[in-house]
Amino acid sequence: MPDEEQRPPERARRLPRAVRERQILDAAVQVFSRHGYHSASMDEISEVAGVSKPMIYTYLGSKEDLFGKSIQREATRLLEAIQAGVQPDLPPDMQLWHGLRSFYRFVAEYRESWTVLHRQALTVGGAFAAEITAMRTRAIELVAALVVSAGTRKGLAQQAEFSGAGLSAALVGAAESLADWALDHPEISDGVLASWLMNLVWLGFNDLVEGEVWKPRPGETASEG
Amino acid sequence: MPDEEQRPPERARRLPRAVRERQILDAAVQVFSRHGYHSASMDEISEVAGVSKPMIYTYLGSKEDLFGKSIQREATRLLEAIQAGVQPDLPPDMQLWHGLRSFYRFVAEYRESWTVLHRQALTVGGAFAAEITAMRTRAIELVAALVVSAGTRKGLAQQAEFSGAGLSAALVGAAESLADWALDHPEISDGVLASWLMNLVWLGFNDLVEGEVWKPRPGETASEG
Repeated sequence: MPDEEQRPPERARRLPRAVRERQILDAAVQVFSRHGYHSASMDEISEVAGVSKPMIYTYLGSKEDLFGKSIQREATRLLEAIQAGVQPDLPPDMQLWHGLRSFYRFVAEYRESWTVLHRQALTVGGAFAAEITAMRTRAIELVAALVVSAGTRKGLAQQAEFSGAGLSAALVGAAESLADWALDHPEISDGVLASWLMNLVWLGFNDLVEGEVWKPRPGETASEG
Repeated sequence: MPDEEQRPPERARRLPRAVRERQILDAAVQVFSRHGYHSASMDEISEVAGVSKPMIYTYLGSKEDLFGKSIQREATRLLEAIQAGVQPDLPPDMQLWHGLRSFYRFVAEYRESWTVLHRQALTVGGAFAAEITAMRTRAIELVAALVVSAGTRKGLAQQAEFSGAGLSAALVGAAESLADWALDHPEISDGVLASWLMNLVWLGFNDLVEGEVWKPRPGETASEG
């Protein structure tokens, strides 16, 4: 009896639905990141979240629903993090630099988000993979816009438009692959990672917009197979 | 009766086992590439190969076995194609250029092989994904060796070793991402694709080994988030 007076009754300690939903999604991202979609169990998500399975079903639906909502939330987070870093009034290379830093900062801070987005969502395929592919396409378009803008400043818009899309696809692939590599090298800061990528690609873009090109040297070509 | 004498009996028209197995694997790669592992059916593989299902099971085993053997064969093909293009006595940039050309020629010629290796194998996960990851790691190591070799020529081996592995991971990601993009742009030749990538990355490597770097310019840095 005294106990009941000292502690608030169970009913009063209930958390608002939004808080519960966030706890569930946090747990889901963690479990999906660790085991992948197919092997993840609702039991483990329930345990990690500290929320009963029936409550999870009521609030957010099936495992499939949970996975879809996890991807949506993490994709939105990632895009917002990158957009927050980019300042549209800066020159194209500085925009790219800030975007890359924000990207690597996000991956370092939310390893599990990145794993779910980059690895798990593609493995499940279907609508999930389609969502990720759409996000990648959006990223490639954003980078391509920077390239064309850099080219236009130099009066070489046509050239930048010809190869810009392909080069931007290459750059996004490079950024993703370096992010995966960075997961195993937490000692390398986001600034260093972004600098490496800028060094790797920006002079290439400069070449493109300046009209300079790397060319295979005659006398050093292999015989064609 | 006269018919029987004119056509060789069924038994004599049997193909050697090695030929049958190749037909089956060709069909498997085609069907896996089109539908993915989970949705691919042994019925369709049997139909495309023109080989009965029981014979497929006898020769090459289950759908899982078939998928594993498809990946192994295509991975070996890809590595052999790239190795055939590289000439170890050339300077590092020319080696990379020839390796890239061979890679893009392979992807253009064997679209289905690339799709199975790059998309489907990762989706299935487990041992298949592990095999692809091992192949990627090998590719990254080969590129890193070129970078360190280029750096050593310039007396900057230590610097190349510090960032070489990360940059090589980025380069391999760029090459893969551009290969995916190229599947939708068959009008761009392997020589152009390889040149784009060389322009995108080689000057970056040059910077690295020359000690030149791209740096964010003061006064253009965004406020940290």
